[in-house]
Amino acid sequence: NTTYKIAVLAGDGIGKEVMPEGLRAVSAAARRFGITLELTEFDWASCDYYAATGGMMPEDWKAQLSGMDAIYFGAVGWPAIVPDHISLWGSLLKFRREFDQYINLRPAQTFEGVRSPLAGRAAGDIDMMIVRENTEGEYSSVGGIMYEGTPHEIVMQQAVFSRRGTERVLKYAFELARTRARKHVTVATKSNGISISMPWWDARAAEVAGTYPDVAWDKQHIDILCARFVLQPQRFDVVVASNLFGDILSDLGPACTGTIGLAPSANLNPERNFPSLFEPVHGSAPDIYGKNIANPVAMIWSGAMMLDFLTKGSGAGRQAHDAIVAAIKSVLASGPHTGDLGGNASTTEMGQAIARLI
Amino acid sequence: NTTYKIAVLAGDGIGKEVMPEGLRAVSAAARRFGITLELTEFDWASCDYYAATGGMMPEDWKAQLSGMDAIYFGAVGWPAIVPDHISLWGSLLKFRREFDQYINLRPAQTFEGVRSPLAGRAAGDIDMMIVRENTEGEYSSVGGIMYEGTPHEIVMQQAVFSRRGTERVLKYAFELARTRARKHVTVATKSNGISISMPWWDARAAEVAGTYPDVAWDKQHIDILCARFVLQPQRFDVVVASNLFGDILSDLGPACTGTIGLAPSANLNPERNFPSLFEPVHGSAPDIYGKNIANPVAMIWSGAMMLDFLTKGSGAGRQAHDAIVAAIKSVLASGPHTGDLGGNASTTEMGQAIARLI
Ligand SMILES: CC(C)[C@H](C(=O)O)[C@@H](O)C(=O)O
Ligand SMILES: CC(C)[C@H](C(=O)O)[C@@H](O)C(=O)O
Repeated sequence: NTTYKIAVLAGDGIGKEVMPEGLRAVSAAARRFGITLELTEFDWASCDYYAATGGMMPEDWKAQLSGMDAIYFGAVGWPAIVPDHISLWGSLLKFRREFDQYINLRPAQTFEGVRSPLAGRAAGDIDMMIVRENTEGEYSSVGGIMYEGTPHEIVMQQAVFSRRGTERVLKYAFELARTRARKHVTVATKSNGISISMPWWDARAAEVAGTYPDVAWDKQHIDILCARFVLQPQRFDVVVASNLFGDILSDLGPACTGTIGLAPSANLNPERNFPSLFEPVHGSAPDIYGKNIANPVAMIWSGAMMLDFLTKGSGAGRQAHDAIVAAIKSVLASGPHTGDLGGNASTTEMGQAIARLI
Repeated sequence: NTTYKIAVLAGDGIGKEVMPEGLRAVSAAARRFGITLELTEFDWASCDYYAATGGMMPEDWKAQLSGMDAIYFGAVGWPAIVPDHISLWGSLLKFRREFDQYINLRPAQTFEGVRSPLAGRAAGDIDMMIVRENTEGEYSSVGGIMYEGTPHEIVMQQAVFSRRGTERVLKYAFELARTRARKHVTVATKSNGISISMPWWDARAAEVAGTYPDVAWDKQHIDILCARFVLQPQRFDVVVASNLFGDILSDLGPACTGTIGLAPSANLNPERNFPSLFEPVHGSAPDIYGKNIANPVAMIWSGAMMLDFLTKGSGAGRQAHDAIVAAIKSVLASGPHTGDLGGNASTTEMGQAIARLI
């Protein structure tokens, strides 16, 4: 029997409040389906750690995490102590890049019991999977400043797309579409305005699509695509996008379903050369931290995606995933709700209610 | 009495169908308020012209347009004949850049008679003005391809922000907020992920904001900002954004109000060194061209913004603007509607109904 080693990094803010509920659900499901987990908690990748040490992580972070099968991650960021780009590039974004987690998988679904802000949208109307490129593109961190501090100052930042990086995310999206009922991919682009990288991205999409004759596809510019998320969200099945466009769509999609408090994500290295990372889409939310009112669903659902990915093929992980998602659905439909869902349950109450059903 | 010279470029697709309605309304308002217009129509900046000549515009386009006070523009693009990035960079985007139209002003409002896709949003709930940077940023067209045609291919595109370009758009937004009831600016950013240009953009925003103590402001990352357009659109007054983020927000905002068929825009060179350009936010929509079913409101409303800008200070342009907008509101509330609004009026019928009320 395999033991799966999981690094637990709760991080900052509400990350610390939702993580216990994530662990409660994951442990319950693991127990029920006979999956052996070895959990190791770390207090770094947090702004508290930064305040104490001057860095976001210890120097040997990579060695400490490389032997892990997965990273279960809460949220990072506390702008009052550390500027966001430092806390994030010093932890989360470093993991994505250095562990080559090139797929960021983010489902958005409407559920019974969760009111969509869109008129007349009900459970099952929205059911999409956003596949976000996660290591390159607009998040290159390549660039610089000229004439600094003068009126002539110019700042430049590269978007960098490699053929390898682009093809692999497109292929992943088309493979995923194959496993779904509608078998449709929408490729996000902006080739009419971003004149070099995006026409090239379109060409890659057409090439990859050509090798999947059984999958229907279209491409849409990001501006009108965002509009259509609001106007016709039921049209979308799999949506594949660059790092920045995927970031935008994966907040907008869940917002259209009711709240980003539900949205989970999986940062995957599909080849398993490095640990993959599972985290809610929401951030550390300093404004609501300390009140035990954050919605734990995104954290719990991310845990379900983790079990599924970890034990792919064995069957047990898929069963554990499905049991967790069923428990989430049932509590959303008729159980305690946190404030973002219009209820007044605490994080703990909602998390316990879900765990009890697993 | 001044004569205002206006270049009329209908362009492609539904641009050709909505332009006559724009001209009908603009001419009616000009007549009523004693504004003298000299209209000159051009058939270039269109894909038909490209098909005939191999270029989007004649070589002396700049000379032909430089003496104009404004450009009234329909829509450009016909991907079946000319790739979008060629048609757009050969016309519209060239105007924005070469005529230094650095402000792209795009209102989004809910109206009586137009159903918002957002549950429970009614007339007056959404009333925002998006100020988009229009000449630089992510639309730099600077970059290139390495190892072309090999598996190692890399494509890079710069986002380029100048201090001058950034400060002037921020200042414009804060000045605009001063003239509005709520006096609030939201600055769109993504400084947590885009690590060089966006933290710098934030610093410019903080500097400019510091000189407007009478204007409240906040900054929001583009991902959560898009989510909030859907979840709390009533919160926004003036929203200022880079070229790309402004592009996204100015399709999403109007979508939240009901249809992008209403959304007008003004591409301004506030110093009047060059003609400004007024155009609907929607594109040429090849799929519905030829049926006379496009919504003419965005074109007409853009014309109202043109008259206001042209005669700034005289009073007549503002009156003409207000009369056109009042006519639009009245027809939206209880007049003929095109198909995107759930009606079955033609473009012409809706345009005529609006002109009759001016
Ligand atoms: C057509 C396209 C290049 C253009 C843009 O992205 O600026 C359009 O979407 C707009 O918003 O005016
Ligand atoms: C926190 C931020 C850097 C991050 C991103 O932009 O990737 C977040 O928004 C996300 O979507 O995971």
